Amino acid sequence: MSTSPERGPNVRPEQRELDVQRVDGSGTRRTSRDRVVVEEPLEIRVAGESLLVTMRTPGADFDLVRGLLFTEGFVERADDVVGVAYCDDVPADARGNVVLVALRPGLTLDAARTARATWMSSACGVCGKATLDSLRAHCDPVAPGPTVEFVTLAALPERMRAAQSVFDATGGLHAAALFDARGNLLALAEDIGRHNAVDKVIGVAARLGALPLSEAILVVSGRAGFEIVSKARRAGIPIVASVSAASSLAIDVAKDAGMTLLGFVRDGTATVYCGGRRVG
Amino acid sequence: MSTSPERGPNVRPEQRELDVQRVDGSGTRRTSRDRVVVEEPLEIRVAGESLLVTMRTPGADFDLVRGLLFTEGFVERADDVVGVAYCDDVPADARGNVVLVALRPGLTLDAARTARATWMSSACGVCGKATLDSLRAHCDPVAPGPTVEFVTLAALPERMRAAQSVFDATGGLHAAALFDARGNLLALAEDIGRHNAVDKVIGVAARLGALPLSEAILVVSGRAGFEIVSKARRAGIPIVASVSAASSLAIDVAKDAGMTLLGFVRDGTATVYCGGRRVG
Repeated sequence: MSTSPERGPNVRPEQRELDVQRVDGSGTRRTSRDRVVVEEPLEIRVAGESLLVTMRTPGADFDLVRGLLFTEGFVERADDVVGVAYCDDVPADARGNVVLVALRPGLTLDAARTARATWMSSACGVCGKATLDSLRAHCDPVAPGPTVEFVTLAALPERMRAAQSVFDATGGLHAAALFDARGNLLALAEDIGRHNAVDKVIGVAARLGALPLSEAILVVSGRAGFEIVSKARRAGIPIVASVSAASSLAIDVAKDAGMTLLGFVRDGTATVYCGGRRVG
Repeated sequence: MSTSPERGPNVRPEQRELDVQRVDGSGTRRTSRDRVVVEEPLEIRVAGESLLVTMRTPGADFDLVRGLLFTEGFVERADDVVGVAYCDDVPADARGNVVLVALRPGLTLDAARTARATWMSSACGVCGKATLDSLRAHCDPVAPGPTVEFVTLAALPERMRAAQSVFDATGGLHAAALFDARGNLLALAEDIGRHNAVDKVIGVAARLGALPLSEAILVVSGRAGFEIVSKARRAGIPIVASVSAASSLAIDVAKDAGMTLLGFVRDGTATVYCGGRRVG
């Protein structure tokens, strides 16, 4: 089966130009050229068979796959994924939208499906407590992590925003970024889906063998819900900062894991939901 | 099996109070009482067996279930769901987080799973075109819909925002609303998930037998991605307005269905992606 690496003609664009009508405050319309963020399906195949299809913004597809398979429990360890490539044996329309995953010898598609089913059946208990219990069973403990100066932390969303390339053009992309305790940018990803952006940066770490991310800070452009904080927990990230609100269950997960969770990190202010001792 | 209706002690709160630390611009911290939006799992059972679990903000749970089962293709027609009630035979922690669904006689859990599998296997083709083809196969045509004055349309996000009750307290909720062509609010829902908020308002219409929503406008507080516009299409909603950006595939779906799609509806201005002839 013929495959392609991530750099090359198979990589699909992350923006598209089209004509739109802009209506101004007086109701006047003019046609103008606009850029919109691309959203397309990505099919993940293991051993030639389809495991799942997810919508995503193209770009960093292999990192997305590595991150997603790990944070969603399809593989136990991030290095269970030993290779990712684009499948070339697809219609021209679908080039760059199908990836083939090679798992560690001995692991199979069935194993991935079973791992995910076990993870889900317990991780989505019917109450918050059951959800926390099962997450604990499926995640290694999160290290205490670094202590970060508040002024450093408060500046991170703006640093992330400044590093976003596609957002400027389209206004349509969520971002996730990893920083170290001194505020250095380690990884950045954009996607129309917040969860995808988080999977992409965790996938970078997986690719580099840098998991667990015991010294890292995860910054997200949107709300910090259960899904985002669970993914961070799975990756061993001790500090999560959001520019918006956190949910009750996200706070419960962070507290349970001893993580630090901040919300509304804007204009030099923030709300610390838990773990404030790590903010200097 | 004992069940409860939606009004009553089983309904879980949509906000939770907790102590947080607020950090101001000078780095000073004070502990204060804050409200956060609740996020909890909801398990949907058919014939006593689990169909799926989804995270959601409690409130309008039965509408969420009706909307989700229809827009995600578990049932062919919205009135295939003939009853929804809370299951009482669950641990105290999970009360209000498990709903029982009664399907039209002759329909079963297996039928719902099969319907969804058929829907998904084609609706998530590996390219945009395949996705559009299969959506077309699974959705009735969308009626042309009303013509709406631009000034009316431009005011809708603010009207929706003013009607949101939980957002004010928590800052953490997405909203979706249905309006008529004169700008009257027909239905409003809040949820930490944008897709849930859309399912909730479509579920209201399902409950009232008001589908397809051939004369309605859907307003959403976040981005208009593929998922949101597909749900609107399935419900026959001719006009969708978002306060933020639309994705490439969302625009493709709207164009394909002859729908009107607007983005960045703010401060009296907007971007019309397609269907501008319906905006007067």
